[in-house]
Amino acid sequence: MIYLDNAATTYPKPEEVYNAMMDQMKGFGANPGRSGHKMAIEAGRLIFNTREMIARFFNIDNPMQIIFTANATESLNLAIKGVLKSGDHVITTSMEHNSILRPIKSLEKIGVENTIIQCNSEGIVNIEDIKGAIKSNTKMIAMTHASNVTGTIMPVEEVGRIAKESGLYFLLDAAQTAGVYEIDVKKLNIDLLALPGHKGLLGPQGVGILYIREDLDVMHMKEGGTGSKSEELIQPEMLPDRYESGTPNTPGIAGLAKGIEFIQKTGLDQIRQHEEMLTQYFIDELKKIEIVKIYGPKDAKKQAAVVSINIGEEDSSEIAYILDKVFEIAVRPGLHCAPYTHKTIGTFEQGTVRFSIGYFNTKNDIDEAIAAIKNICQQL
Amino acid sequence: MIYLDNAATTYPKPEEVYNAMMDQMKGFGANPGRSGHKMAIEAGRLIFNTREMIARFFNIDNPMQIIFTANATESLNLAIKGVLKSGDHVITTSMEHNSILRPIKSLEKIGVENTIIQCNSEGIVNIEDIKGAIKSNTKMIAMTHASNVTGTIMPVEEVGRIAKESGLYFLLDAAQTAGVYEIDVKKLNIDLLALPGHKGLLGPQGVGILYIREDLDVMHMKEGGTGSKSEELIQPEMLPDRYESGTPNTPGIAGLAKGIEFIQKTGLDQIRQHEEMLTQYFIDELKKIEIVKIYGPKDAKKQAAVVSINIGEEDSSEIAYILDKVFEIAVRPGLHCAPYTHKTIGTFEQGTVRFSIGYFNTKNDIDEAIAAIKNICQQL
Repeated sequence: MIYLDNAATTYPKPEEVYNAMMDQMKGFGANPGRSGHKMAIEAGRLIFNTREMIARFFNIDNPMQIIFTANATESLNLAIKGVLKSGDHVITTSMEHNSILRPIKSLEKIGVENTIIQCNSEGIVNIEDIKGAIKSNTKMIAMTHASNVTGTIMPVEEVGRIAKESGLYFLLDAAQTAGVYEIDVKKLNIDLLALPGHKGLLGPQGVGILYIREDLDVMHMKEGGTGSKSEELIQPEMLPDRYESGTPNTPGIAGLAKGIEFIQKTGLDQIRQHEEMLTQYFIDELKKIEIVKIYGPKDAKKQAAVVSINIGEEDSSEIAYILDKVFEIAVRPGLHCAPYTHKTIGTFEQGTVRFSIGYFNTKNDIDEAIAAIKNICQQL
Repeated sequence: MIYLDNAATTYPKPEEVYNAMMDQMKGFGANPGRSGHKMAIEAGRLIFNTREMIARFFNIDNPMQIIFTANATESLNLAIKGVLKSGDHVITTSMEHNSILRPIKSLEKIGVENTIIQCNSEGIVNIEDIKGAIKSNTKMIAMTHASNVTGTIMPVEEVGRIAKESGLYFLLDAAQTAGVYEIDVKKLNIDLLALPGHKGLLGPQGVGILYIREDLDVMHMKEGGTGSKSEELIQPEMLPDRYESGTPNTPGIAGLAKGIEFIQKTGLDQIRQHEEMLTQYFIDELKKIEIVKIYGPKDAKKQAAVVSINIGEEDSSEIAYILDKVFEIAVRPGLHCAPYTHKTIGTFEQGTVRFSIGYFNTKNDIDEAIAAIKNICQQL
């Protein structure tokens, strides 16, 4: 099996990730608490250390501003619904995943307005359109760092600057970039950063992260036991407790720590360069096949390691099915939970066949994919 | 280390639980989707099979009514906030965990009333008090199956009957009983059942469950990608998708399946009888130590395998610290995220030292605990 579905979840994970989860569960599988017995303290320390590691990784000063969630979708819901109130306006783009679009659309019923900036057919946003959409009641710009369909990298530095200059909150969805591209919350003026643990950060499924800038008041979604201020019936205000009720995914967090450690040891540049090299090679080879339509910028410097294609007018699901069944190549077809993106690039009916590359892919994987695509094209 | 903190999380887990997580992550670590390549389908099938297994375990007809959450706290928040609306009234008890009390208290600000039924000093609720609290706007009875502090088992069958007769929703928090006590949602008239995966069900931390009775409309808390109806910007209404946006904790669910399988193979009766035997033995031995105060029913037939004590007027945290440091015995002191419970049993200032027994504990563990407690008493 050649795995080219890394935008859905990276596979495999570094061996240390699996081992760390086992070590935690077998060695100190307690419920992490702020106080308690040795095993509970060790589990608590692991979580704190992971928070510190994440903070350093994204240039965040205070690790207590790192919130663990179930996945990036929960992080985005918390950020969007915790900040926007009736009468507010939020700006987003047509290249977003449903994890941004659906929460934003759901807020319409409580009177939160939105503007969805139309991107061009390569998924590129015009920065002037964002500026032009700012109104007196605009409170937030919420957008992805890179499209999960075309890989298109958004001009986040400019958007961050605009947000700062205009006094808006900048929420970045880094689902397709964290662990591969440098993300410095200060340099990019990020107020809220939503991250999955299981994609570029190489951790297991089951952990998401939300960074909340200090002094930014985000309403929590859940109350419950926090191990702190247990005598009170109101949710404590202190972070991260306010947002982390109930037992956390301790083995998942143990795995995530090792994923990030792997990235740090390997080097972000090394990972990105490897992915860029394979992406560019894949695009260049695809261009040679006449019947193949490639979406997005077609330039590895302008897109994350995600390449969406179609073969003529063939149904994307059908092509993906053949790739899986006949060639043992795992990709993802369809709409990728991003309907506006597909409308933007003109594939709302057909969907696309998405190939997404990870650090553990090799040139041989790409060669096999190209050979398979050529083979399919010949059969048509 | 003698682990007597199983009410916080069971430890260890059956070996199969760890192995299943590894097998999933290494063998088919894809993002489970309704469509897709072989690995994604295998991951999706695992999740569906686990849903079916859970449904059978609790006598639930339709496995699609089983929602996976991050933990029981999220399940309780979803159930409480998804059902109760302004003008409604909810009944609960003074023996609840903050995961019920805090969400209920938070709803006061949107006009949801509550009545917290005062239990007696053993944590026992008077069923007549519940009946008497029902008003014309009462919509739900939300309560625990067994106290996490005293183990006191609640009269859930009677409460379920009252709820049904009065047309109220019955939300049961089975955090301390699932996997040890029989829970039949039909027999108990349960409309909403909140469960942690990592306690009696012997799965890993990071998975919770909410069962929602068919035709009961519960408002979802999060929107996002569901892999279904991706073309729509509104959250799909179909279950379980409506409540499960984003990537699930697939390895956690793989582990949970094996935890439940272990219970089914071992037999619920066998597990309960073992825990009851150890609990009664522990209580009987504790009764012989004059200075020890035991809370709760002091009868293993009337309480789950949770025993809270104090030694004279000694601070509970101090005793727990000595148990850990000197005797290598892991217990949990303090308020256990249940302030009203401690007010009810008269330990709001002192807290209690909580010993909680799991299936993997032995008579020797109890003997060691008793010896340690006697030793501490002698040193005072």
